Amino acid sequence: MDLESIKDPRFLKQYSNEQLEQFACDVRSFLIEKLSETGGHLGPNLGVVELTLALHKEFNSPKDKFIWDVGHQAYVHKILTGRANQFNSLRQYKGLCGFPKRNESEHDVWETGHSSTSLSAAMGMAKARDLKGTDEKVVAVIGDGALTGGMALEALNHIGHEHTDLIVILNDNEMSIAPNVGALHNILGRLRTAGKYHKAKEELDYLIKKIPAFGGKLASTAERVKDSLKYLLVSGVFFEELGFTYLGPVDGHSFEDLFENFRYAKKTKGPVLIHTITKKGKGYKPAESDAVGTWHGLGPYKIESGEVVKPASAPPGYSKVVSETLRTMAREDERLVVITPAMTVGSKLEKFGEEFPDRLFDVGIAEQHAVTMAGGLAAQEMKPVLSIYSTFFQRGYDQLVHDVCRQNLNVFFAVDRAGLVGADGETHQGVFDIAFMRHVPNITILMPKDENELQHMVYTAGKYEGGPIAVRFPRGNGLGIKMDEQLKEIPIGKWEVEREGSDLAILSFGPILQKALEAAERLKKEGISVKVINARSIKPLDEEMLISLAEQNMPLITIEEAALQGGFGSAVLELLSDNNQQLIVERMGIPDRFIEHGSVKHLLEEIGLTVPSIIERVRTILPKKQQRA
Amino acid sequence: MDLESIKDPRFLKQYSNEQLEQFACDVRSFLIEKLSETGGHLGPNLGVVELTLALHKEFNSPKDKFIWDVGHQAYVHKILTGRANQFNSLRQYKGLCGFPKRNESEHDVWETGHSSTSLSAAMGMAKARDLKGTDEKVVAVIGDGALTGGMALEALNHIGHEHTDLIVILNDNEMSIAPNVGALHNILGRLRTAGKYHKAKEELDYLIKKIPAFGGKLASTAERVKDSLKYLLVSGVFFEELGFTYLGPVDGHSFEDLFENFRYAKKTKGPVLIHTITKKGKGYKPAESDAVGTWHGLGPYKIESGEVVKPASAPPGYSKVVSETLRTMAREDERLVVITPAMTVGSKLEKFGEEFPDRLFDVGIAEQHAVTMAGGLAAQEMKPVLSIYSTFFQRGYDQLVHDVCRQNLNVFFAVDRAGLVGADGETHQGVFDIAFMRHVPNITILMPKDENELQHMVYTAGKYEGGPIAVRFPRGNGLGIKMDEQLKEIPIGKWEVEREGSDLAILSFGPILQKALEAAERLKKEGISVKVINARSIKPLDEEMLISLAEQNMPLITIEEAALQGGFGSAVLELLSDNNQQLIVERMGIPDRFIEHGSVKHLLEEIGLTVPSIIERVRTILPKKQQRA
Repeated sequence: MDLESIKDPRFLKQYSNEQLEQFACDVRSFLIEKLSETGGHLGPNLGVVELTLALHKEFNSPKDKFIWDVGHQAYVHKILTGRANQFNSLRQYKGLCGFPKRNESEHDVWETGHSSTSLSAAMGMAKARDLKGTDEKVVAVIGDGALTGGMALEALNHIGHEHTDLIVILNDNEMSIAPNVGALHNILGRLRTAGKYHKAKEELDYLIKKIPAFGGKLASTAERVKDSLKYLLVSGVFFEELGFTYLGPVDGHSFEDLFENFRYAKKTKGPVLIHTITKKGKGYKPAESDAVGTWHGLGPYKIESGEVVKPASAPPGYSKVVSETLRTMAREDERLVVITPAMTVGSKLEKFGEEFPDRLFDVGIAEQHAVTMAGGLAAQEMKPVLSIYSTFFQRGYDQLVHDVCRQNLNVFFAVDRAGLVGADGETHQGVFDIAFMRHVPNITILMPKDENELQHMVYTAGKYEGGPIAVRFPRGNGLGIKMDEQLKEIPIGKWEVEREGSDLAILSFGPILQKALEAAERLKKEGISVKVINARSIKPLDEEMLISLAEQNMPLITIEEAALQGGFGSAVLELLSDNNQQLIVERMGIPDRFIEHGSVKHLLEEIGLTVPSIIERVRTILPKKQQRA
Repeated sequence: MDLESIKDPRFLKQYSNEQLEQFACDVRSFLIEKLSETGGHLGPNLGVVELTLALHKEFNSPKDKFIWDVGHQAYVHKILTGRANQFNSLRQYKGLCGFPKRNESEHDVWETGHSSTSLSAAMGMAKARDLKGTDEKVVAVIGDGALTGGMALEALNHIGHEHTDLIVILNDNEMSIAPNVGALHNILGRLRTAGKYHKAKEELDYLIKKIPAFGGKLASTAERVKDSLKYLLVSGVFFEELGFTYLGPVDGHSFEDLFENFRYAKKTKGPVLIHTITKKGKGYKPAESDAVGTWHGLGPYKIESGEVVKPASAPPGYSKVVSETLRTMAREDERLVVITPAMTVGSKLEKFGEEFPDRLFDVGIAEQHAVTMAGGLAAQEMKPVLSIYSTFFQRGYDQLVHDVCRQNLNVFFAVDRAGLVGADGETHQGVFDIAFMRHVPNITILMPKDENELQHMVYTAGKYEGGPIAVRFPRGNGLGIKMDEQLKEIPIGKWEVEREGSDLAILSFGPILQKALEAAERLKKEGISVKVINARSIKPLDEEMLISLAEQNMPLITIEEAALQGGFGSAVLELLSDNNQQLIVERMGIPDRFIEHGSVKHLLEEIGLTVPSIIERVRTILPKKQQRA
């Protein structure tokens, strides 16, 4: 079948299970081929082919609402809802989004990207339905990893209490982004092997039948025993205790099993949890064999060999520089421990974990717990490093404020993926961390211009004992500059002049500083002399240098790959105002809107963070200066 | 015994249970008497008298670490650790804090205020101990309400998985701040009545003994049955599934039972949960009878009658204005629903709930779920209002960004307790919400100058369909001004001139605007003409008015009862900078540090948000203007 001709999923209604199986093969071939060119989340999508087809056959989207937790597993859903022809542009600028997107299709009723949100959204939609008196079904599809996130547990608790009609499909593939940890996972693990208990249950039925002599009270005890055996053996106990009807475990690759359970769930009052077992990467050998690492989400690859297409040679990634520096420091400082919320692989912490297995805590998708646990370690004189993506750090904001900064604890936040992240798009851009950290008392915030400065900053933060400190660093590879062999401490609250100039000063930090330097070099040819400052200490600012610039009446441009509102440029304005300095300040950064997916290069062009844009700003400012002078 | 002579808890070691019981009476009398003058969290503390004495007898603080979740139940702990003589100043400016405070005592090892943080902190401390090789015990005391918070569940999950040695004391008093909801509560409810199942368990033992004929496989099945019965009947199943050893339920007012379980827990490897049943307000009739309402936390009262001392007459509280306006609107608009995370009483939503029982969702302590559930409702064309305290809203920051604002959903955030809250202190001050909301795209932020404007703002936000909107309002009572009978919409993005003036303009919002008006009136006598503007639209700003002020070269003072970093004044600076206006701007607000407890009046004096401070600022600015002119 030509997938690109699909307009909506209604054609599935007529399909037999055999036809569905054939069609599932087509979908897999399509995904493997298309993603070999664009990259994307191959493994998760290969795992849910049957599940998605079955959902679209048995339910009626868009009337019935499908909510995809995290959402990187919605490719099959996109194919079935008329978007197969856009897969050439998957995750590219102005192309098909890698997550559900309401403006792409009426079948995308809820947008995701961060995990564990689907149950709360489903609860809201189900309550809306009940209040409006309509009869659509609400179905959330959530992975076992996402289920450990606190908000998913909050939602399970509330849904169970309210006994609201909705269906949760637990897509259990034994791993989220990394093999997920936690006791909840153990329970799911037990569920997975539940098959072998069926025999025991039969034996108990026999036992109970054998003792009719025990009447009255004991009979009811025996009934309870039987119930409890059901609980213990099939162990849906966790969910049943919370008030859900538990169905499963179900083979998530068997249409027959899926339909049987979907139909039963549709008839059941109250919340139902269908526990499906699927295999990430199913149907593509390379993806099956390393579903958690490479094949969770990746760039282009060769279909035959499964070989990932890589640039010939690349400078070290920022994450790796951080983890290696931490590893070096951990050899000297026994107090140094690292916490990661399910990002061991993403933040390149595997080797740290191998060398210091007791000192790496992968807490699963549990950012709030991660932040406060770091606080607990620091309160007992350890030196915890929380390695966390900027965008996921948002979920630990209250813990940052209330637990760590308020108590002024020595927690080191290694804020990964700060700035634009590219293909993952607006749910993942790391652009708010400066704005949400800067107003919190006691914190120090740094960002390096390159990978060499990064290693020194990590060293600095690792040694720092003055309270919480954050080092933010971008996604991807460094600039390829030489790495110093000796680690050294960087003075906090001090900026560095990268290039002297007399007409105007640019304050910037992070790799985008390079663009400022390039702009300055080009402007020199026009006779414009631009000073460029590495404003690597975002909080505190280098007050001395800033005041000195003000006293020279030097117009300023601030450039940051971060939200402008409440950001670094805003901090510069605040400090100048507090010092009664009225200066020309132009702020360049991320405007007040969400930035969609696309290559970072495209995105920077769109928002005007390029060398030509900087040059243009300088040109518009200088006449103003002359006007005022 | 003279409680004020206690220096540390070691004297308890010698006490018999009888002596402890007598001492518990003394402690209760002390609390009832002291709090009748100062106010405070009486109910929660009367509930944990025996528990706290038993902890301090059986464990060795400060070597052993006690972590009090929420922390408003730590008064008895404070008495035992040498602070009884400070109770006259409880919750007052520079006085004894109502929560654990590390600078008060070495026995306070972790500070709290927000709920559900204790397990994560305990996990951090326990891991620190294990890595350091020391042998202290780590004990977290958490209420059943706090246990529904997502981060507590994240922590339970991780602790269970790691099998870390620590003790969790579940202080189950059937209610948190409000009767808490959620399926988890149902489980605890079942536990509470577990006594009656003991008989059934005995019967099963008998049954199993009776059937020795069933050998081999069946015997092991029967053993499992027995195990499972234990699970079902005493139903510690939830915690045992997560990997904890479950002990209880224990009568939390019986020293004998408490010691027995504490001793067993100390010997047990891995995490232990001791489920204690206590009664809030225990030992004081008025407090026992209404533990969830008045007596959770209150001001002064008459001991004999339990009559609460109230000012003769007070203007309506802001929370009540909001809830009554919502109730009026809900009669017209069937789509309007209200969500509260366990603050039905605090935010005065009882009457709304009585009139619209299906349209008030008290989700328990579950702020993340609350925000995203509101998003789900909005995605299905409902009009959800999330009633939430500013300080607790911090916990829903990621959900605000990722779920609500990114999808531009029509959620109305009624942000209660914005600004300084007084006696609850630094964990509860509502001073960061502007800074953490303002940089999020799509949101509108308003604050009214008084209760009359508040009702119109609630009406405006209730009608608004342009995306997320927040109305922030203070704790406490209004100004006592006349309330309009007719609700009306207030234009968003528009400020109002409250008073004309030509020398300088003050921009402010919220009740603190009154101080600006008073300052202006006084300055008039000195011949200084101050314009005062009600800058009630915090985002968007009134760009037109601001630019017009700039064009008149009018110096500005911004005044906000909110954090200065990234706050309203900062937004003014940004907008002026974006419009190439270099103006004198002085920002007044909350400085970059945490503000401790005390009356709001004292706190405002401390940080310089008073009429004299405003007058002084004006006087320092005007010469600057002349200098520049």
